[in-house]
Parts: sequence; C-alpha cells; structure tokens
Amino acid sequence: MQKIRVGIVGYGNVGAGAATAVSANSDMELVAVFTRRNPKSVKIKDVNAFVLPVSDTEKMTDDIDVLLLCGGSAIDLPEQGPQFAAMFNTVDSYDNHTKIHEYLASMDAAAEKNTAIIAAGWDPGLFSLMRALGESILPDGISYTFWGRGVSQGHSDAIRQIEGVKHAVQYTIPIDSAIKAVRSGLKPTLEPGQRHVRRCYVAVEPGVDKMEIKEKIKNMPHYFEDYKTTVYFVDVDELFTKHSKMPHGGVVLHSGNTGENQHVIEFSLNLESNPEFTGSIMTAYARAAYRMSRESIFGAKTVLDVPISYLSPKDREELIKEML
Amino acid sequence: MQKIRVGIVGYGNVGAGAATAVSANSDMELVAVFTRRNPKSVKIKDVNAFVLPVSDTEKMTDDIDVLLLCGGSAIDLPEQGPQFAAMFNTVDSYDNHTKIHEYLASMDAAAEKNTAIIAAGWDPGLFSLMRALGESILPDGISYTFWGRGVSQGHSDAIRQIEGVKHAVQYTIPIDSAIKAVRSGLKPTLEPGQRHVRRCYVAVEPGVDKMEIKEKIKNMPHYFEDYKTTVYFVDVDELFTKHSKMPHGGVVLHSGNTGENQHVIEFSLNLESNPEFTGSIMTAYARAAYRMSRESIFGAKTVLDVPISYLSPKDREELIKEML
Repeated sequence: MQKIRVGIVGYGNVGAGAATAVSANSDMELVAVFTRRNPKSVKIKDVNAFVLPVSDTEKMTDDIDVLLLCGGSAIDLPEQGPQFAAMFNTVDSYDNHTKIHEYLASMDAAAEKNTAIIAAGWDPGLFSLMRALGESILPDGISYTFWGRGVSQGHSDAIRQIEGVKHAVQYTIPIDSAIKAVRSGLKPTLEPGQRHVRRCYVAVEPGVDKMEIKEKIKNMPHYFEDYKTTVYFVDVDELFTKHSKMPHGGVVLHSGNTGENQHVIEFSLNLESNPEFTGSIMTAYARAAYRMSRESIFGAKTVLDVPISYLSPKDREELIKEML
Repeated sequence: MQKIRVGIVGYGNVGAGAATAVSANSDMELVAVFTRRNPKSVKIKDVNAFVLPVSDTEKMTDDIDVLLLCGGSAIDLPEQGPQFAAMFNTVDSYDNHTKIHEYLASMDAAAEKNTAIIAAGWDPGLFSLMRALGESILPDGISYTFWGRGVSQGHSDAIRQIEGVKHAVQYTIPIDSAIKAVRSGLKPTLEPGQRHVRRCYVAVEPGVDKMEIKEKIKNMPHYFEDYKTTVYFVDVDELFTKHSKMPHGGVVLHSGNTGENQHVIEFSLNLESNPEFTGSIMTAYARAAYRMSRESIFGAKTVLDVPISYLSPKDREELIKEML
C-alpha cells in the first residue's frame, strides 16, 4: 500500500515533534524537512528523509502528499500558509485566536485544489472540539478552559523583553480549587486571576536591581497584573537544566443542566512534551487532509469540519468493531 | 427561521430525556411522540406536541424532519430502525456493541434517501469518539474505559431473573486506584475485575433463603463471577426511594508515548441522569442528521462520520470565533 508522503516546513520544536509523530505512523513516510537554516546544520532522525532549503519546497509538489507547516503563528504562517496551501495539502497549528478567521479566509482562497487544515493543535484544536461538543449537547451550560501546568511562550518572551533579563521561563498553573468547584457542578464566575497563577523563573544580568525587575514583571499589564505572580531568580544554568522541558496540558469542563439534573463533561490533557503532542495531532490531521483532498473536499478546514474517522488509519469496519 | 421538526418513537426514560433535550434547543420543535401504549395514558410536558400511536408514524413523514428512535436495542431497534429509516432521517442510541455492524448494515440499506445516525449515545457514542481520537493521535498507546458509578440495566435485569427476587438495582463502580494508575502514566494490564466492582441492592420475596440468592448472584457467569460483588438486601420501598435515580458516567483514558515522553488524554462524564444526557446527545445528532440529509449525505452514519460542527446550532463564523 502506498504510504502518505509527508513534508515538514520549519524544524523547530513542533517540526521535530511532527517528525517523531510521522515515524510512529506506519502508513506515512517523511519525505523531506524544509528549513531556512543551512540544511547541513539540521540533524533529523529519519535517515531516508531529505533536509532541504525552504526555497526547494515548490520543487517537491509531486513528491509530497501533505505538508506540515511548523512555523510560528505571528510571522511565518500568515505568509507561508497561503503560499504553500496553493501548492500542497497542508496542516498547521496556527494559534492566534483573535486572527483565526482572517487566516482561515486567506488559506481558503489559496487552497483552491488542496485541503488546508488549520489550527490543528490542542488549543485551538482538540479543546475547540470539546467546547463545541459540550455546548452542542448541553446548551444550558457553561464551558471552562484551564491551561497548564505548562510553559507559556508568550509570557516567557514578555519577561525576556525587560532590560536586565537574560532568560526567563513562565509557567501557567491552573488553580486546583477552581477546577474542583467546576467539576463539582458549581458554575462559578471566575476572573482570569481566579483560574490561573503565574510562576516565573528569571535569570538576570549581574548587578541589576532584582526588586525592580520583580515589580516590573508583576505589574506588566495584560500579561501579569491580573494574576497572582511569583518570581524566582535563578541562574541561566538552572533554567536550562531544570526548565527546558516543555510539559503542558489543561482541562476543558462543560457543566450543564437538563431538567432537574446536572452533568459535567471533562476533557483533560497531561503532556510531557507540548511540541511532540502538537506534532502528533498535526500528523493525525495530515491523514485527514490527504483523504479529504482525494475526495475533492478542498479549501481551508478546521478540526470542527473533520469527522474523527478521517484521523484513523483503520478502515470503517475495523473502527466500528473496535471503537463503537 | 424554520425550526427542525423532531419526532420521538418510544417514551420510556430515554424518550422522555430526548423530549426534555429538544425543548432546550431553540432551533428545534417537538412535533409528536409515538407510543405503543394508549396515547391518552402518556403525559408529556410539551403542550404543542401530539402523542400518537406508533402506527401513525408513517402518516407524519411530511411533518417531521428527524425521528429519534428511543426503543430498546435488544428487540425494538433491530425491527423499528430500518422500518423508520426508510421513511425518516433517524437518530438512535443503539448500544449492543457486538451487533452494531449488522445493525448499521440494515440501517444503511433502509436509509436510501435519508440520514440515519446510529449508536449516538455516550458509549457507544462519545466514548467511541474519544477512543478513536486518542488512538489516532498517539498510536503508541493504550485506551482504557471505565464505567460508573452508575446503574447497569443489564446486570439489574440479570438479578431480577433469579427466582425469589422481587426487584434489584446494580451499580457498576470503577476502581479508583486503577483509574489513578492509568492517569499517572502507568499502562497496567487490568482484568475486568480489576477495573470495576459491582454493588447490588436486592428486594426479595418473603421467606426466601437470602444466602442462597446472594451466592447465585455472586457466582453468575459473565455477569458477576469475575467481579468483587457485594449484595445488600433492602425492601422494595427503599429501592424506589433511594435507587430510582439514574446517575451514570465514566472515563476514557488514552495513555501514549512520543519519543521519550508520555501523555495522558482523559475524557470523563459525571451524569445525574443517564437517560436525559443520552437524549441530549441524540438531539444534538438530530441537528447533524437534518443537515446531512439536506446535503444528500444519505445512509447509516456513526458519530465517527459526523463533523462536530454539524452538532452545533451556530454558523461557521460564530463557531470559529467562539470555539477556536
């Protein structure tokens, strides 16, 4: 049987996670990784796959069935996404919530003869599925999303912008008592600061005023001022040895009522590696993009548009027998 | 805007739960309940809906968009299902795992010009979705399903077959330590009796040998002998006052690995009313059946075949804005 031929654009954490995921799926093969770095400097595990400059991507349209776009959402995807969706079936984990609609429109316009599945990570992505599922089944209800314990790249970057900071890692931590209240069937009104706390590990330049940096972090509008924030000063070595793993996770709860009765639907993720899990989701949706394109279901799609059966390598009979 | 016109066949617990669910969805209206009982004896809350003999169903093909089949899986659905799927779009919560394939085939043959969504409860149903999702994302992993705490109708019925038993209610209870082990990332091999215990509340005829009945229950092959089973003798009044509610729930865990890392995906339900929740799922899938039929996606479908967006009353733009 012909394997699904996969390409990866961008070999950062998510790209490497996607490569690991492709190798775990026996119906897929990794054809090439495309990078903006010097290809010789990029080491990948799969000895059969090419490492090529990103400018070579368009030469490989006949060799690749689905391209996984593993660039960043801020700058890379808005530009690369439509460019590649015009040539390939694509999957990405675009995660800028406020601009998804705009991104979807540009991908939809580009993917005239291809299938482009966007925002296929875990949030947006799996968590979006769960929020929509909960709300559709129990319309008289409320959905709650908690993130963490995990590193927020955006918040870590915000700290790194402060003068005198060498490096920083910020953990978003859900407040357990808030989750428990929702799980128990209460429907509390929770301000952002009642859902999460923020813990920061910061390495600074020699001689700076730590108290001043601490205050700057704690009072940073939007990022920290509404949260209980704790700041720990550590050296750079400790940041790299103790805080370079990328665990993450979270919970979506939907608490709803029917008649006199209440119900709680809960979906949670506990992830040792955020990028490897994200790469795994993208890889499952690569299978869906491949199949949808073969059925001429073209244009930009989200996880809400894709039946779960399209993610599985199993055929319908097996799925019905084993899953139902 | 034209509401989706819903009919319900069978007004037992699930039928009543479905009626409650339909009334909670503003884009739907309940047109009629069809019953085998004397229609005058069936009281429903919705004053605008008819209660009609089941033999009148076929007269209402022009008045109903989707028919919710709320009969039992053992006898009713295998006969009624194909009969009604030939005339209406249908949704059911058929739950005989071992015969789903056969049932699907007969529904598929009947639903030539209709959409018939089968097995749309929570197991099979939502739990099937989660097992397929987990396995597709993390192929190097294992799925575990735990049920309860909740009443098992099949096990309660099995006890009621014993001579001398007047009434009985059996709770299936998941073993907490087993769930915790899976949640922690261990992948234990768990025999059925290591996943669940069974607790039985039994009312007996006067003068019977309770010890004998207890032994008969505990040693009943397939149903009880492989489980830690406790039996409590109570009077019929207590069964009705303390054990007539129908809570249920359960957990699907998928524990999997990528590279050096492990991940746990967990989906759980905590339900005060099993039939009202099941009716709510069927109602959300009624919306999907209606839409699919308008797109000429005919035949028998399972929850694995239906994109989550089809369950929601929201349009695509709203969904993307609010869910992603």
